[in-house]
Amino acid sequence: MSTSPVTPPLGDAEVVDAGLSALARGVIGSEILKIAAEIRAMKARGADVCNLTVGDFDPAQFQVPRELVEGTRAALDDGQTNYPPSDGVLPLREALVRYYERELGLRYPVDAVLVASGARPLLYATYRTLIDPGDAAVYPVPSWNNNHYAYLSGARPVPLPVNAGTNFFPTADLLRPLIGEARTVLLNSPLNPTGTVMDPAEMRRIAELVVEENTRRARDGERPVYLIFDQVYWALTFGEATHATPVSLVPEVAPYTILLDAISKSFCATGLRVGWGFMPPAVRRRMADILGHIGAWAPKAEQIATATLLDRPEAIRAFQEPMKQRVRERLDALFNGFKAMKSEGLPVDAIAPQGAIYLSVRFDLVGATVRGRALQSNEDIRRVLLEGAGLAAVPFQAFGLKEDTGWFRLSVGAVSTATIEGVMPRLRELLVGAKR
Amino acid sequence: MSTSPVTPPLGDAEVVDAGLSALARGVIGSEILKIAAEIRAMKARGADVCNLTVGDFDPAQFQVPRELVEGTRAALDDGQTNYPPSDGVLPLREALVRYYERELGLRYPVDAVLVASGARPLLYATYRTLIDPGDAAVYPVPSWNNNHYAYLSGARPVPLPVNAGTNFFPTADLLRPLIGEARTVLLNSPLNPTGTVMDPAEMRRIAELVVEENTRRARDGERPVYLIFDQVYWALTFGEATHATPVSLVPEVAPYTILLDAISKSFCATGLRVGWGFMPPAVRRRMADILGHIGAWAPKAEQIATATLLDRPEAIRAFQEPMKQRVRERLDALFNGFKAMKSEGLPVDAIAPQGAIYLSVRFDLVGATVRGRALQSNEDIRRVLLEGAGLAAVPFQAFGLKEDTGWFRLSVGAVSTATIEGVMPRLRELLVGAKR
Repeated sequence: MSTSPVTPPLGDAEVVDAGLSALARGVIGSEILKIAAEIRAMKARGADVCNLTVGDFDPAQFQVPRELVEGTRAALDDGQTNYPPSDGVLPLREALVRYYERELGLRYPVDAVLVASGARPLLYATYRTLIDPGDAAVYPVPSWNNNHYAYLSGARPVPLPVNAGTNFFPTADLLRPLIGEARTVLLNSPLNPTGTVMDPAEMRRIAELVVEENTRRARDGERPVYLIFDQVYWALTFGEATHATPVSLVPEVAPYTILLDAISKSFCATGLRVGWGFMPPAVRRRMADILGHIGAWAPKAEQIATATLLDRPEAIRAFQEPMKQRVRERLDALFNGFKAMKSEGLPVDAIAPQGAIYLSVRFDLVGATVRGRALQSNEDIRRVLLEGAGLAAVPFQAFGLKEDTGWFRLSVGAVSTATIEGVMPRLRELLVGAKR
Repeated sequence: MSTSPVTPPLGDAEVVDAGLSALARGVIGSEILKIAAEIRAMKARGADVCNLTVGDFDPAQFQVPRELVEGTRAALDDGQTNYPPSDGVLPLREALVRYYERELGLRYPVDAVLVASGARPLLYATYRTLIDPGDAAVYPVPSWNNNHYAYLSGARPVPLPVNAGTNFFPTADLLRPLIGEARTVLLNSPLNPTGTVMDPAEMRRIAELVVEENTRRARDGERPVYLIFDQVYWALTFGEATHATPVSLVPEVAPYTILLDAISKSFCATGLRVGWGFMPPAVRRRMADILGHIGAWAPKAEQIATATLLDRPEAIRAFQEPMKQRVRERLDALFNGFKAMKSEGLPVDAIAPQGAIYLSVRFDLVGATVRGRALQSNEDIRRVLLEGAGLAAVPFQAFGLKEDTGWFRLSVGAVSTATIEGVMPRLRELLVGAKR
């Protein structure tokens, strides 16, 4: 430019904010991302922090499969640089059909499959495709982001508090009183934030409850209740835990079920932005139109690379077995550390690893005094863990829970086993000093 | 799986559809994508079609810069495979600040920049960040997708019909009667679908009108009107036409202006999914929270590659100069063909190329009989062009226009000059046979 640049005035922040939509002014950003940003800033200042906050993988610890890198490169070299179809490239949708048949025993048609830039846009679009303002969205708490999707879609949020007594899952008995008013019921297994995996017998009972309710509704001319099943962590189960889908257990629930998934967690590929859903074609058609306009499309080259990988079961195994082993090692290191402290009588508890990249840990410190500070909430506990032991974790409050129960999500995707082992003595020392 | 796969029932399409949200049932999918799918099917059956429908680049005709391919590859090799920050990686946001200062003479702070998976999600999020249900969204017709964004945000759509008399742009005089009720005013230049470029003098008058209106509103305690300026085609102007932004012409409009942009068109990179917006930080903060939940994030490796490219002005020139030349060649081949037909007295007219990848052509055939068929609408004309001459084009109806004016968008990103030259004689023959 020959003329000198303009530095435009951008308004007074408060005045500008007051002029935005009610939707925008009421939105609450991700609590986890806020905590994560705080940790990043601390680390940048040189603090020694064991960062267990973000539901992500540090590539220094967990790389994506080479097939995804090479497949993306090959697709770009091959000129796969223009618009993908807004609902996903056909080779990926076809590969997904084969993948679900082979791995999950589900034979869906290709027009049941919708691709987007991760599972997140599909979850958002699911709410918008199903929810009329005021419709009841039932979801367990703790669970990830459903409060935000309920808000953005105008749903009436119906959080269903669950606890360690049911492995942090709803049961058919807990759901039954709510099912009559529910428009959607969300289930997520393996569960973010708890790392627990749903018992297939209970999942079957819930699916049967949904079918039973919808049989009644069809008779009475009412709209059905939908089951939104988020299974992005399904490739990551440990020990006795096995993953099931409501549809494989109770096929009759399929007309009312949306299955959500992505490469993000199964292949440590959160940054490649490829996700998908399986659903009735008549739902898919509308959701595809909504997502088409929103433009939350997966990049084309990554879609093609994903299609190639999904057709190679031996490559998937070769990647996932050591990856799961490494996740497991980290979860075990944490869990064993907490078990030892518990057996010493320290005020902690943890749930043995079942799935995902998370460990649920309870710090029974509400009412205790630590480092001279009387702790009254999970937020107080979070601060003292961070400042006193360099342990960064996310309280279940970030997942919609109201009560200060002392439960935290510990995520292992971004740390080494050595880092975990390094933080445990500091943590023990902190807890030993806790007074009641 | 040891057990045989389940083929789940997926419900009766009509019944399922009746059970979806009103929003989903009312959404209208992209008309252009529907036409494009029809053309793809015809070509698959072996038909010889000159496809001028899709606002995209065929990589056989228009490749992305090598820097983007190599940069994406390098970033993937470097392990840039995990979550980007939901608002975009900082190196890209910083590079965008430098890019806009260098190329557009606008010096925005980095917290004015928001990155997403293309310009489309930003346009959607802009509507949701600004519009309360019932707010008036003013946009010219023809224009791209604003009817859909108004629908999805619950806006009251206020289409402002424009025509060739104002180069298909609104003027300050046309806007003045609507400005009092407007919550948003959308401008797009270079314009999809017309390929016209806005006169900076008129743009200045409109920006001044917005400032004047907002001065009044601030005095009266009313919320401001926002200018949404979609400039995704700004790198593509031809001949006399030059691109300006409202902010560079009238800096005082910046607190009420959202600038939208992407690599999609400037770098023929529609499939890489990197877009951005510049806006007041107080708007950006809320929009980032909304887009964070929606998850329409650009893939991380492509973001890093884009950052590197944007800091290399010489590489940008080396790419864009021949690219623009090739677009221009195709537009000229079309335009000259139509000019020749017009001078023969055939019922066509076209607007000389100004920008983007589009040519506006008018087929004055409503009321005429072609190939024995009496044509009564743009849709009739579209069919006869396709079936009689193998020319596939999109009528302005797909851009929100109601009237059957005979105007069409011809897009040249996916064809060679030879293909264009091949279709012109067939088209001429068809028009010669038109009877009144």
